[in-house]
Amino acid sequence: MMDLLLTYDVDTTSPEGAKRLRRVAKLCEGYGLRVQKSVFEIVADDAELLRLLARIDSTIDTERDSIRIYRLPHNGLADVQTLGIARVQSHRDDLVL
Amino acid sequence: MMDLLLTYDVDTTSPEGAKRLRRVAKLCEGYGLRVQKSVFEIVADDAELLRLLARIDSTIDTERDSIRIYRLPHNGLADVQTLGIARVQSHRDDLVL
Repeated sequence: MMDLLLTYDVDTTSPEGAKRLRRVAKLCEGYGLRVQKSVFEIVADDAELLRLLARIDSTIDTERDSIRIYRLPHNGLADVQTLGIARVQSHRDDLVL
Repeated sequence: MMDLLLTYDVDTTSPEGAKRLRRVAKLCEGYGLRVQKSVFEIVADDAELLRLLARIDSTIDTERDSIRIYRLPHNGLADVQTLGIARVQSHRDDLVL
């Protein structure tokens, strides 16, 4: 399984953009957590990631929206630094104390 | 040097929030690139990162805003997957073809 970070840039001042963000959020939440309005922490294997990206690609407006997917180091999602109200969130049962 | 990803969640529908985002963007752009409205790719060493985080902490509203900083693998910023209008961007001179 890979730890991934997916960021979505979409103009949510338009109703269509807000709708696309809701749809992408729903897709991503099947594989992880929404940690900011348009940032998703994802744990997936190669096949799941391909499936997710195909679904997202058919959901977004590919001429307006931007999606970036970063691969983190092993257990990288447990190693995030935060400022403000952000909190580290647990993805794997074995990390729950 | 570390490859880092910094994501900022701030309510930009308020003028104060939009102003804080502009200020954080200006701080981050000293260390990297703004690749989405509130996503910054940063290349920094430990001392630079500490300095940047201290400046950001005194800029954001710590009771409303969320900042997350992820450490990527070595050269992780050159290894991003994209959909839509997103493009991989070069940070190091030696990567320019």
